[in-house]
Amino acid sequence: MSQPLRLGIAGLGTVGVGVVKIVRKHAALLHARTGRDVVISAVSARSRDKDRGVSLKSYAWEDDPVALATRDDVDVFVELIGGEDGPARDAVAAALAAGKDVVTANKAMLALHGQELALAAEAADRTIKFEAAVAGGIPVIKTLMEALAGNEITRVMGVMNGSCNYMLTRMESAGLTYDQVFAEADGLGYLEADPALDVGGIDAAHKLAILSSIAFGTKVDFAGIELEGIERVSIEDIHAAADMGYKIKLLGVAQITGRGLEQRMQPCLVPDTSPLGQLEGGTNMVVIEGDSIGQVVLRGPGAGEGPTASAVMSDVLDLARGGARGPVFGQPAKDLRTSTPATSQLPAPYYLRMSLDDKPGALAKIAKVLGEAGVSIDRMRQYGHRETVAPVLIVTHKTTPAALGQALSAMAESGVMATSPVALRIEEV
Amino acid sequence: MSQPLRLGIAGLGTVGVGVVKIVRKHAALLHARTGRDVVISAVSARSRDKDRGVSLKSYAWEDDPVALATRDDVDVFVELIGGEDGPARDAVAAALAAGKDVVTANKAMLALHGQELALAAEAADRTIKFEAAVAGGIPVIKTLMEALAGNEITRVMGVMNGSCNYMLTRMESAGLTYDQVFAEADGLGYLEADPALDVGGIDAAHKLAILSSIAFGTKVDFAGIELEGIERVSIEDIHAAADMGYKIKLLGVAQITGRGLEQRMQPCLVPDTSPLGQLEGGTNMVVIEGDSIGQVVLRGPGAGEGPTASAVMSDVLDLARGGARGPVFGQPAKDLRTSTPATSQLPAPYYLRMSLDDKPGALAKIAKVLGEAGVSIDRMRQYGHRETVAPVLIVTHKTTPAALGQALSAMAESGVMATSPVALRIEEV
Repeated sequence: MSQPLRLGIAGLGTVGVGVVKIVRKHAALLHARTGRDVVISAVSARSRDKDRGVSLKSYAWEDDPVALATRDDVDVFVELIGGEDGPARDAVAAALAAGKDVVTANKAMLALHGQELALAAEAADRTIKFEAAVAGGIPVIKTLMEALAGNEITRVMGVMNGSCNYMLTRMESAGLTYDQVFAEADGLGYLEADPALDVGGIDAAHKLAILSSIAFGTKVDFAGIELEGIERVSIEDIHAAADMGYKIKLLGVAQITGRGLEQRMQPCLVPDTSPLGQLEGGTNMVVIEGDSIGQVVLRGPGAGEGPTASAVMSDVLDLARGGARGPVFGQPAKDLRTSTPATSQLPAPYYLRMSLDDKPGALAKIAKVLGEAGVSIDRMRQYGHRETVAPVLIVTHKTTPAALGQALSAMAESGVMATSPVALRIEEV
Repeated sequence: MSQPLRLGIAGLGTVGVGVVKIVRKHAALLHARTGRDVVISAVSARSRDKDRGVSLKSYAWEDDPVALATRDDVDVFVELIGGEDGPARDAVAAALAAGKDVVTANKAMLALHGQELALAAEAADRTIKFEAAVAGGIPVIKTLMEALAGNEITRVMGVMNGSCNYMLTRMESAGLTYDQVFAEADGLGYLEADPALDVGGIDAAHKLAILSSIAFGTKVDFAGIELEGIERVSIEDIHAAADMGYKIKLLGVAQITGRGLEQRMQPCLVPDTSPLGQLEGGTNMVVIEGDSIGQVVLRGPGAGEGPTASAVMSDVLDLARGGARGPVFGQPAKDLRTSTPATSQLPAPYYLRMSLDDKPGALAKIAKVLGEAGVSIDRMRQYGHRETVAPVLIVTHKTTPAALGQALSAMAESGVMATSPVALRIEEV
């Protein structure tokens, strides 16, 4: 009879409560699948008295997560406090130092301090597992780190913030402006306390930084991500993109190029018939490409009590089975390469939306300016004039960001633009 | 410095050669990801002299796979011979008896002898891993057995035979008959030597039987599958289904019902806007539903050298990392339950296509017969008459298979049917 695996859970929000529920409800199933009992020794949260809809009476209580993390009756410290620093980081460091394995859903902490924590874990011959940190219930960490370990990974991309995807699809389906949808999402509790984490793309970028490290054997480099949120996405662009056969998604893309590691998190156009284009609402999707596998697409719930708790349990049960404690990011942290951040120089088609002064030759002038910058036009639509301006949509052939930037500068100086143009990359998926 | 993990590979067809290529090309990467070298000690195949496009000179050769499986310098026996019995099964049994772990892509062997082999493996404290046996490169075994181990699985379904899906999508896109597409697929080498394995649904059913066992903790029960291939799917049905907003897919579904384990592999209609409906060509898709996760969808290449070799390597590298040798089907084979096969009694909507004699009251009679059997009509379309018959399409409301069977019998006796009706289940996905 094997010893039980004993958990200490810090943080009893939605996900923590979800984990407690699974451990209680599925005790027999978890035993059958791991050969041992999985039990909770102790829990910790800010408020002891809050009614969380689940009885915690049989678990020891610690006010201090560091005290929880270092208890003798805890084998695995489950960190669900959140926040890149503060108690979460302190408790994880304490747990590792005390010889505990760690399971966490904390993407911010890993994106910003992952290298340091991985070194600490590996020095202690312990590990940090974090399936729940990226794309909720979708098993993307396990897929990338284990299932595709025989592949050289060539590209990882995905829609990894359900709140943003909900907002963008809602703008289109209900014809609402960004501000209207923001207010709605905030009212429904879909946004983080600091909404910039969601709409600024920061949360999704944390996830991308983690995936990049595993995919490419590089140190987590959140600062190297070219980051833009969805705040500037307008209902006009959503409608215009749809008119050209595209959807606008907050898309993360990571790939190794000749210039270094390219990591982008930004609103992009994707074909409306592609799996990414058809992703609606709060669902997440991750696309992984490797030299042997070709492409694999994973789709599922990116957040919520059940899905995120399911991912936490994936890690807990791996530890319960007694598998090897592999390196935190798939290769020993000391061997991870420092990447050179590479702003994308890969050519891509672009979507341009602009309003021209309604005067003779304006469109010809723009076409000339684009041509002189080496940007060629694939498709162009001019819509009915509105008062004194003419709305124009252009889809370019593949062009480099440098050439596009040059074209945008020249357009600004052309004297025929009524407003600044909107330029969005079209991602080939 | 850890000892290398030494492979013996039996079977040097497409997949075997793919594995050899990965081991050679990515030696450094595999070492970085597992902490040890992964090497090939010996290989075996029917013909030693065949040019396989990769040098095998540095590996020992065995004519007999049993001899290969039991060599002292082999830690993991990689079985890529295929076939449910014969040398594959003999060599796997010999490998386990000799204390080797086994990695295999052999779905037929596992579907028919999985329980016996799992008992043998667990008695020897060794394991059999088989990610490549189901859905090629898609990590469905790892997802079901590890990532979702905290879930009670409620339903597993999928399109798991790329050749059938290629044929069905090609019938629609090119307007070809079943016989035309069969000849084309056969000419392109897309079909097994015995094409019934593909078009009869047997190969896909092997895969479903394996997934069911893991999902529900039951002994593999291939014989309990309600099985129908795609041979009777006509271009008329594909067009008619499209006209009603559906695609026809060879869909496997497994779920536990009050009556036992329901396992079906049959042509079904799915909404053309669903992820399964949008799956084209040889790609596979598996949908897994669990009580915490909700639904997760995995999509990727279901066959081919690179993807299948990638899946074989997933298993090899798990063993290289030295993880625990878990039970073959996720729970100890001795504890797996014997399931009661349950032909589906769950109500579903059905698609009916029929030709009625072109005489007054024929349609009214059919409507009456359906009503008397308790089958209510959701949508009905009658098309322009062809000579003396009137083609009619009906989509029913949810009805039980029993009620539908009763309705079909009564329709046959109604005296107004020009031909036997086609009835296909509509799956809610």
